[in-house]
Amino acid sequence: MSIELEQARQLLLAEAAPCGEVETLPLLETVGRIAAADAAATMDAPPFPRSPLDGYAVYHGDITHATVEIPVTLPITETIYAGDMPKLKLNPGQTVKIATGAPIPEGADCVIKQEIVTILPDSVRFSTPHKAYQNYCFPGEDVAAGDLLALSGMPVNPVAINALAGQGISSLKVYRKPRIGILSTGSELFSGYDTLTPGKIYDSNSSFFASMMTALNAVPVLAAPCSDEPGKLAEAIDTLLANCDAVITTGGVSVGARDYLPQAGDVLGAKSLFHGLCIKPGGAVLGLKREEKYILCLSGNPLSAFITFQLLAVPLIKRLAGYSQVIPGSYQARFHGSFPKAAERRRFLPAIVSGGDVYLPDNTRGTGRHTTAINCNCLIDMPAGTKGLADADIVEVIGYEGGF
Amino acid sequence: MSIELEQARQLLLAEAAPCGEVETLPLLETVGRIAAADAAATMDAPPFPRSPLDGYAVYHGDITHATVEIPVTLPITETIYAGDMPKLKLNPGQTVKIATGAPIPEGADCVIKQEIVTILPDSVRFSTPHKAYQNYCFPGEDVAAGDLLALSGMPVNPVAINALAGQGISSLKVYRKPRIGILSTGSELFSGYDTLTPGKIYDSNSSFFASMMTALNAVPVLAAPCSDEPGKLAEAIDTLLANCDAVITTGGVSVGARDYLPQAGDVLGAKSLFHGLCIKPGGAVLGLKREEKYILCLSGNPLSAFITFQLLAVPLIKRLAGYSQVIPGSYQARFHGSFPKAAERRRFLPAIVSGGDVYLPDNTRGTGRHTTAINCNCLIDMPAGTKGLADADIVEVIGYEGGF
Repeated sequence: MSIELEQARQLLLAEAAPCGEVETLPLLETVGRIAAADAAATMDAPPFPRSPLDGYAVYHGDITHATVEIPVTLPITETIYAGDMPKLKLNPGQTVKIATGAPIPEGADCVIKQEIVTILPDSVRFSTPHKAYQNYCFPGEDVAAGDLLALSGMPVNPVAINALAGQGISSLKVYRKPRIGILSTGSELFSGYDTLTPGKIYDSNSSFFASMMTALNAVPVLAAPCSDEPGKLAEAIDTLLANCDAVITTGGVSVGARDYLPQAGDVLGAKSLFHGLCIKPGGAVLGLKREEKYILCLSGNPLSAFITFQLLAVPLIKRLAGYSQVIPGSYQARFHGSFPKAAERRRFLPAIVSGGDVYLPDNTRGTGRHTTAINCNCLIDMPAGTKGLADADIVEVIGYEGGF
Repeated sequence: MSIELEQARQLLLAEAAPCGEVETLPLLETVGRIAAADAAATMDAPPFPRSPLDGYAVYHGDITHATVEIPVTLPITETIYAGDMPKLKLNPGQTVKIATGAPIPEGADCVIKQEIVTILPDSVRFSTPHKAYQNYCFPGEDVAAGDLLALSGMPVNPVAINALAGQGISSLKVYRKPRIGILSTGSELFSGYDTLTPGKIYDSNSSFFASMMTALNAVPVLAAPCSDEPGKLAEAIDTLLANCDAVITTGGVSVGARDYLPQAGDVLGAKSLFHGLCIKPGGAVLGLKREEKYILCLSGNPLSAFITFQLLAVPLIKRLAGYSQVIPGSYQARFHGSFPKAAERRRFLPAIVSGGDVYLPDNTRGTGRHTTAINCNCLIDMPAGTKGLADADIVEVIGYEGGF
């Protein structure tokens, strides 16, 4: 009955789509948001040829034969500062004093550094030849007309913001943030922050889910924890579905007498996409769909909930939020340390990657410990049948969200 | 006069300190913020031994010799669901039905999966021996009393939020966000978004700086662009200093006639820490300090401003924001492609790193192009004297902020 992770992900993503609605926001409010349309530069920035240094602009032909022994002296016709426009066209046999960032006048095709010329009262003596377009920044050196500055489905980053601002663009279309309903289930969950009563534990997974939403460009909608009663569970999910684009739950998804989520799905009239994944930890997962909305039910164990949230919920939420790349990227890295436990099932291990090297966190108190993941930034993907990991093994590593 | 990057960074960080003030925020609002105090778990979560599956709890000694041929049958004394407390102590010769997540009663030391027992009307038949503590989760399996859940100077991440919530912790002390004044300078800068007048360019660096602040746990305070006049520049910086913890400027820091920032520093009574770095691009940098506040003046070229912001401004702002790790991390990676240009000075190249491999962005239109950095996530650090980069070279790579 359990299926492969990739198959479950495919079932979740097959028909999921960005919320559709877009919003137009002031440019500075779009940082990190998902562009809902491509934005290309419409003009060169800078719009004019620009001097990259303080010096003297000339036509290169005038100083082709200049040497220390036989220098060339040219009269200064004007001084151009950044922000000025040249008043005159430069004629052969002339030079202009020019500042960093100032427009190079028509007729000039190179700039000579002020440090290597001899400045005379109204003229300048050159003793080194320069090539055409030496120290000459073409229009569009920073951003050229046609450059893609924002790509639909990609987060708008600060460098793009710089380039967009340089075009005089003051607003941008981004996808609306999807609203994700969050529900922790289990009669053992204690609401609030008072002293625990016996047999109870504090609800913590819903705080984890909620705190992941900002990183995913989504809005958390938190429901109160729900006890193990099929009717109540169905009602709580139904209420969230009415106000949200998808719902994520934890707990009650195994095959025990009180694992009521499958039953709640029936009450809701939801279609079961899958129940059970061939992975460890976190194999107890239920994927449901009612009309166009998805309900993803994860295990109540915090480490399991963490891992399946990264592997299944993140791609689903990213798809709804408009990201074009929704599957966590993976690459190979060299393992340092030792993990002698064989993986009968495909296993995911929270770990710490830096460049091409990956390490286990300090786990002297047990690898199943949720808190070991606090300092991690990736998952090691151990295929089923792996006979443990030895130092220098090459392993597959999956980057994840919220590891900081 | 130019100094090494590391030396400049040391001068900026020698006396810079976190703002000092801390704020106590509701737990969910602390995600990504910098913890201002360590927080350790005060209790085990779960607080009781817990069953990891649906089955039957027994004392292992009772079934040591159980086989299919000679099974052991034990009477069921109660049923314990998650959220319940066991009513009875388990005596030898008894079993209890137990659900995933429920507390294991005193006297029991292992749980047998329901799938491998034979269920009779009021008793259960066991035919496989189990070891003590098999399928038995000890108290503190998720979080153990004493586990460090938040570390002063580190961002609070979602996994930590989960662990903190599991302790019933509802608020956390975090550092106040420093206020960073932002000033673009240059008479060529055009304010607003109307059509450009000749010789002018739109101010874009201040938008870049502002959009980087969220990622750094800082608040941007934007001033209008200022023209190249020492008095006006000093006044604009002075106004920002009165309201901010530090000021970042761009433009006017080279050695040209209208590079007035050093002069503005004198007017302000600021001490010059350094002027000029041995790096390319972005060597034109000025570090100032007035009383306990820093003024970091970067080049107006957007690519230079970007690179020096990452290398100098990020560590300074992180220090003010309370981060304990402020210097961008670096590691070695294998270069793919070709960069034939020799680096006379130490050079930083925006690039794309994935695991242990690093690539240049598509730069067919010039490596000095600011827009090539839109798709990058790191800098290649080429030491002075490097004779270009060839395929498979091992290079030093520096991760940076805001590359997404």
